[in-house]
Amino acid sequence: MSEEKVIQSVILDDENSTLIILDQTLLPNEKKLLRLTSQNQIWEAIYSLRVRGAPAIGIAAGYGAYLGTKESTAESYEELYEDFKKVKEYLASSRPTAVNLFWALDRMEKRFLDEKGKSAQKVKDALRDEAEAIRKEDEKICATIGGNALTLLKNGMGILTHCNAGTIATAKYGTALAPIYLGVERGYNFKVYADETRPLLQGARLTAWELNEAGIDVTLICDNMASIVMKEGKIQTVLVGCDRVAANGDTANKIGTSGVAILAKHYGIPFYVCAPLSTIDLKCATGDDIHIELRPDEEITAKWYEKPMAPEGVKTYNPCFDVTDHNLITAIVTEKGIIYPPYDKNLPKIFK
Amino acid sequence: MSEEKVIQSVILDDENSTLIILDQTLLPNEKKLLRLTSQNQIWEAIYSLRVRGAPAIGIAAGYGAYLGTKESTAESYEELYEDFKKVKEYLASSRPTAVNLFWALDRMEKRFLDEKGKSAQKVKDALRDEAEAIRKEDEKICATIGGNALTLLKNGMGILTHCNAGTIATAKYGTALAPIYLGVERGYNFKVYADETRPLLQGARLTAWELNEAGIDVTLICDNMASIVMKEGKIQTVLVGCDRVAANGDTANKIGTSGVAILAKHYGIPFYVCAPLSTIDLKCATGDDIHIELRPDEEITAKWYEKPMAPEGVKTYNPCFDVTDHNLITAIVTEKGIIYPPYDKNLPKIFK
Repeated sequence: MSEEKVIQSVILDDENSTLIILDQTLLPNEKKLLRLTSQNQIWEAIYSLRVRGAPAIGIAAGYGAYLGTKESTAESYEELYEDFKKVKEYLASSRPTAVNLFWALDRMEKRFLDEKGKSAQKVKDALRDEAEAIRKEDEKICATIGGNALTLLKNGMGILTHCNAGTIATAKYGTALAPIYLGVERGYNFKVYADETRPLLQGARLTAWELNEAGIDVTLICDNMASIVMKEGKIQTVLVGCDRVAANGDTANKIGTSGVAILAKHYGIPFYVCAPLSTIDLKCATGDDIHIELRPDEEITAKWYEKPMAPEGVKTYNPCFDVTDHNLITAIVTEKGIIYPPYDKNLPKIFK
Repeated sequence: MSEEKVIQSVILDDENSTLIILDQTLLPNEKKLLRLTSQNQIWEAIYSLRVRGAPAIGIAAGYGAYLGTKESTAESYEELYEDFKKVKEYLASSRPTAVNLFWALDRMEKRFLDEKGKSAQKVKDALRDEAEAIRKEDEKICATIGGNALTLLKNGMGILTHCNAGTIATAKYGTALAPIYLGVERGYNFKVYADETRPLLQGARLTAWELNEAGIDVTLICDNMASIVMKEGKIQTVLVGCDRVAANGDTANKIGTSGVAILAKHYGIPFYVCAPLSTIDLKCATGDDIHIELRPDEEITAKWYEKPMAPEGVKTYNPCFDVTDHNLITAIVTEKGIIYPPYDKNLPKIFK
């Protein structure tokens, strides 16, 4: 694998005028790059999930705030700020529950305010620099998590992952997949098993796709095959990403993650969560405090199929995430190092 | 639920001239009964999986041997036997790996030979009686397993099942679903959770369908949601069928069953296997001796979808079954009673 095979799904072009994104809605059937120049196009790309993954959304929003403001013909700082605020409000409406979206837009506004009194052009340049910084910082966090997690792996290992915590969800490298990309760059061979991750099949559509593109040995399995591949000795470690980590180490991630953790414990396989500090929420005491989003029936009964695959009107239960108990997690890998139990003592330390 | 709501998917009509089967290939979108009168139609129904489930296939083959022989114009016993053997050989070619198919056809031949020297009409009547006996015996086995398993259940329980071990796979009632039907007939209320059972979705297409038809409270979940429903206290017992039970209690069943058993053990939920004696193979020492069929890539990557849901050419691993270790099984429920560990001592006793 050559380094450039690690896909960067959200980048600014060399003229600083176009945001190039990979249209993830077309995966795995088509690899199409979109060239977006207006705030409307970027709004639509976030709204329609063409760009997805919390870090990638934040990065796209940062560039959107820059490109949207760049369109303004305002000459004074104050006039430009009025236009900036409209751009910010507009982009914030694209995905109203995406925390990283607001975080990135707030950061862009802070930078705008830091440039108080400067010329419109200087402010625009500063916004570009800030958007670039958001992307580069995310890439660095991912690479650092990857480097830390790589110390836990050995050449030749079989690795199971669930959902997609890969390069296309971030600036580069991903979180759970970062050690795999970095290891392969250093000449390791891994055999990766990707859970397809029902109902929306992020493992099949995204993880299997991006690893395949990078020339990494990946085998797609249905979620219910995780037990047999572990039993047959095909898996030496499990790597997953996360949406939120509570203060006691309980970890919310894509539905099914807790089941994988229980299987891993049963078979004596280490289970690692790759978590940027931004996902660790010390104000949340345990997993019981994490609200689990319930999703529509159709994702289970109909969404991907030519014909409905379940009887009309059948009840479904479709939670989007589940919580993995801290006692099932071998370690949590962050950009500040590897955290081992007891998490309630060791997680707060990394913020000091 | 009224009793007649328990579907019988393979029955002979009142005139003894037509086999009525439920076309399972059209489920869950269409409930269509086929009326089959010729051996060719019955061959096609077995070949095309319109009738499926080991017991149901055996029953259809028995009726096929009767109806195929009934077409014969032979007048002597010997001539009729020649025609019977052709029918038997033909039907045996419909699904060359289905053990119950051969078992039923051999049993029909034995009955034919028992009627030696009798008139063609008397032999044909005997074949009809034998086919009816195969069906009735299966119904009785299922009802007895159901009655035994029902003693393990309580009104109001949440029950998780995997794949389809239901009425449409047997003469009536099914194996794992039999206690549910019998319990509901007696006024119990259960809340059933059906794993969709990737890749072929028997849970979504068949189990959710047949329970829904019978007016039983069923909720469809993706396989990877079994952990969260157990953790949330929705499940008090797990009931599954089986394909083969080894002498030590190791049990082969649809892929994913072993994972469900590990989750049940983790959460302290009883895990019961419903197993007709015909599935218990004392010559097979442990699960290691059970060969696991591997199925085509397309079932994971493409089969049910409008567009491929995984990248072209991605490797898959697609085992059809897995083996659940005996130490994960709370009890095995048979028509001869409930067998508890140690299975290596207690399973042989029921054959004495």
